[in-house]
Amino acid sequence: MTSDDLAEIHRIHQLKYRYLRYLDLKEWDELGGCFVAEATASYASAPELDGREAIIGFLRDAMSSTTLLTSHKVHHPEITLLESERASGIWALDDRVLVLDAGIEIAGAAFYQDEYVRTSDGWLISHTGYRRVFEEVRPLPQDSRITLSWWSEGGMGDQSHK
Amino acid sequence: MTSDDLAEIHRIHQLKYRYLRYLDLKEWDELGGCFVAEATASYASAPELDGREAIIGFLRDAMSSTTLLTSHKVHHPEITLLESERASGIWALDDRVLVLDAGIEIAGAAFYQDEYVRTSDGWLISHTGYRRVFEEVRPLPQDSRITLSWWSEGGMGDQSHK
Amino acid sequence: MTSDDLAEIHRIHQLKYRYLRYLDLKEWDELGGCFVAEATASYASAPELDGREAIIGFLRDAMSSTTLLTSHKVHHPEITLLESERASGIWALDDRVLVLDAGIEIAGAAFYQDEYVRTSDGWLISHTGYRRVFEEVRPLPQDSRITLSWWSEGGMGDQSHK
Repeated sequence: MTSDDLAEIHRIHQLKYRYLRYLDLKEWDELGGCFVAEATASYASAPELDGREAIIGFLRDAMSSTTLLTSHKVHHPEITLLESERASGIWALDDRVLVLDAGIEIAGAAFYQDEYVRTSDGWLISHTGYRRVFEEVRPLPQDSRITLSWWSEGGMGDQSHK
Repeated sequence: MTSDDLAEIHRIHQLKYRYLRYLDLKEWDELGGCFVAEATASYASAPELDGREAIIGFLRDAMSSTTLLTSHKVHHPEITLLESERASGIWALDDRVLVLDAGIEIAGAAFYQDEYVRTSDGWLISHTGYRRVFEEVRPLPQDSRITLSWWSEGGMGDQSHK
Repeated sequence: MTSDDLAEIHRIHQLKYRYLRYLDLKEWDELGGCFVAEATASYASAPELDGREAIIGFLRDAMSSTTLLTSHKVHHPEITLLESERASGIWALDDRVLVLDAGIEIAGAAFYQDEYVRTSDGWLISHTGYRRVFEEVRPLPQDSRITLSWWSEGGMGDQSHK
């Protein structure tokens, strides 16, 4: 474990953190920049996705609505540097999704198993996917209220659930 | 990205982690030691705070009660080392606040945008603030119970919500 | 803070992350491999545990059922390297436990205070324990549903709470 290895691991962490920031802020073009063109993804029970276009298209369709509010947080990175400018990584995910239209919330835990490749643009994701420890769906309480959100410009857009 | 850079980033992480430990444990004087005197803060919809005294006074007033229990957890640090012993940082926040007196809980996600400065006492916060991805308020379920807390000395102080 | 220090801290992080992965995935033998034989543990209000066998036995008894689903996530590591191949660490814990049989969920925040020792097998845990910031128990909502879990092979085992 050299100083160079630590720097590479740090760069892979930065890639993952950027990816998750773009995901929760619904910045789809920037999110696309985290993947190589031929990347693949397998998100729990979702269909297998082949290619950056398919991945971003899937996420954009599923999550663009600002009535769907998400928090995806990853923890416990276990990164392994491999030969040929490649690396793999395990991350623990906790996620929480508020689906305001449907009046439900989804919360769960999972483990990501990722693959990364170092390109002339730095480290990028070549494969990502996770398998659930558990996923739970429950109704939002009737008097739950969203009091602030990124998209409502500073909380002026208070929207009661019901 | 040198070994020295990694060490500086590590030190900034340590500052943030200490800050959050003091916050959730309501150790206000120690929390003050994380800021330069002229620090500023902008916490979501709270008023702009100018100076360490104002920041700590605000937090102390808002959060000293042990009927208000908090978990502030930060993730995904993206630290940028700047010139002149300065740095900036983006962090993803998940927070959860139980307001036992009012019978509500507040949970949300946000992104911090911080500024740091290296002083003779090490790295300190010169600006901190966050903007909400979302913030939700809901009633505590009627039969929610706090079974242990830091301030009740080992859980002897079981206090039902209602 | 040398590059070697950063590498040692990195290795201690990896130990803790592996420990938590084994815990949430109920891999008890592998979990045992994270401790020295004479390790001790003090988990909040649980009895003091003396020796690796006692620790793993306790966790196995308490958490083997796949109707008990857990997410233990640690944050904010503050690791101190000590003399004689020893180290200590503070970590912030958020945990969430779904007890499907009993129809309750337990969620809380805590601070771990760990001790580590470097052995011929790398860094291992010589003591672990945490004290609660808060712990809350509440009933699972009647129409909460587990829609996926690690042990139900890809979500085929949808099990409604009631």
